[in-house]
Amino acid sequence: MDKRSKIPLYLQLMDKLIVKIEQQDYEEHEKLPSEREFCEIYGLSRITVRQALQELTLEGYIYKLHGKGTFVAPKTFNQNLVKLYSFTEEMKKIGKVPTTKVLEFNEIAADERLATKMNLSPFDGVFQVIRLRLANDEPLMYETSYLPKKFFPQLTEQDFVERPMYDIFYTDYQIGVTKAVEKFSAISVRDAESRHLKMVTDQPGMLIKRDAYHNDALIEYTISVVRGDKFDYTVELS
Amino acid sequence: MDKRSKIPLYLQLMDKLIVKIEQQDYEEHEKLPSEREFCEIYGLSRITVRQALQELTLEGYIYKLHGKGTFVAPKTFNQNLVKLYSFTEEMKKIGKVPTTKVLEFNEIAADERLATKMNLSPFDGVFQVIRLRLANDEPLMYETSYLPKKFFPQLTEQDFVERPMYDIFYTDYQIGVTKAVEKFSAISVRDAESRHLKMVTDQPGMLIKRDAYHNDALIEYTISVVRGDKFDYTVELS
Repeated sequence: MDKRSKIPLYLQLMDKLIVKIEQQDYEEHEKLPSEREFCEIYGLSRITVRQALQELTLEGYIYKLHGKGTFVAPKTFNQNLVKLYSFTEEMKKIGKVPTTKVLEFNEIAADERLATKMNLSPFDGVFQVIRLRLANDEPLMYETSYLPKKFFPQLTEQDFVERPMYDIFYTDYQIGVTKAVEKFSAISVRDAESRHLKMVTDQPGMLIKRDAYHNDALIEYTISVVRGDKFDYTVELS
Repeated sequence: MDKRSKIPLYLQLMDKLIVKIEQQDYEEHEKLPSEREFCEIYGLSRITVRQALQELTLEGYIYKLHGKGTFVAPKTFNQNLVKLYSFTEEMKKIGKVPTTKVLEFNEIAADERLATKMNLSPFDGVFQVIRLRLANDEPLMYETSYLPKKFFPQLTEQDFVERPMYDIFYTDYQIGVTKAVEKFSAISVRDAESRHLKMVTDQPGMLIKRDAYHNDALIEYTISVVRGDKFDYTVELS
């Protein structure tokens, strides 16, 4: 702690603890030191420590259990990358209410790059759907999907307001997703998405590109920007 | 640019620039023209140019350095998450020369948290090895491994300088890794690691926590911080 700094000590302590939580030095559900212990570790007064812990609780980084102590709050969501998953289903599993806002629904002509990627002719029709996915009204993912018109000729914006995408594929077109390939990278979330995701610009996010197939046909290409502080992804290797 | 086309101008510009990058008209780490210059070259508005550059940044073709400009991103390494992989082997596959710097090698006593996680008694001996992994002398990963002494009693720093870790496990101890679970999250890379990785602080990175098992025994716990601009990870779901 820098006691000569203009930054209040409780904010300095908060910063230190947030870094430890974000770097997972303190892991999800791990018990934190007590107020008294924090005072000793950092040479701070009880009031300062208490204020930092209160702010962190308010901001959702930690939680208190009466008579037991203070613990690191879990990320909203851990996705196990074994089989195909649906945002809607996964959120329901952990007791959250999933909602979707359709931000844009456009019919566009495939440019050369999209045509090459999706095995289309240039200028073939493609639906571009941009959706914001929320859980308990908290925005978590910003998803842009490209869906060739030749597979899904009658798509409407209303479809996406009402139903999960794979329901539409299956119920209206009898097209099931049989395989998906996802590519993950860590990025700084840019302006447009960070506003929708209620993030501070340049916070880290996960960029996920999904190619979904029906047998050998690429029927969906989706680019998701996911809040880095809310999600992690687990995979088992053998 | 074809201003009468149905394809938005920013997509047309993106296509042009991607071709130039892929043809290596613009080479890796080459500085691109400024937004203003692009406007003049292609007769486009600032908004269009900016949108194209933002998309290209998101897709990893280019990167920005604050106050310096926009540059062509080098190829990233793609790790396919199907089976156990070794940094050394993967780098050799793509024709890079992998090297490892051992930054720290310590024998420590397991604290309560590590003991609980690794199924040890408190104060059991654990080797902590911090390694920087490089390809063609470029630092890519900062890895901290915890290895219980009861499985690998005679480890030395020299072992890690000379050989891949799993070679040591297998050759010296007849212990093979049969399964690993990896958890991925997107983080801001903090000071200590970013210095070693030659990153600007707060650039995004991938945090990977690996639990490696020999049958049911957890024999290795490794925390890796990976340059977000260098790696992506692919997984197939079905």
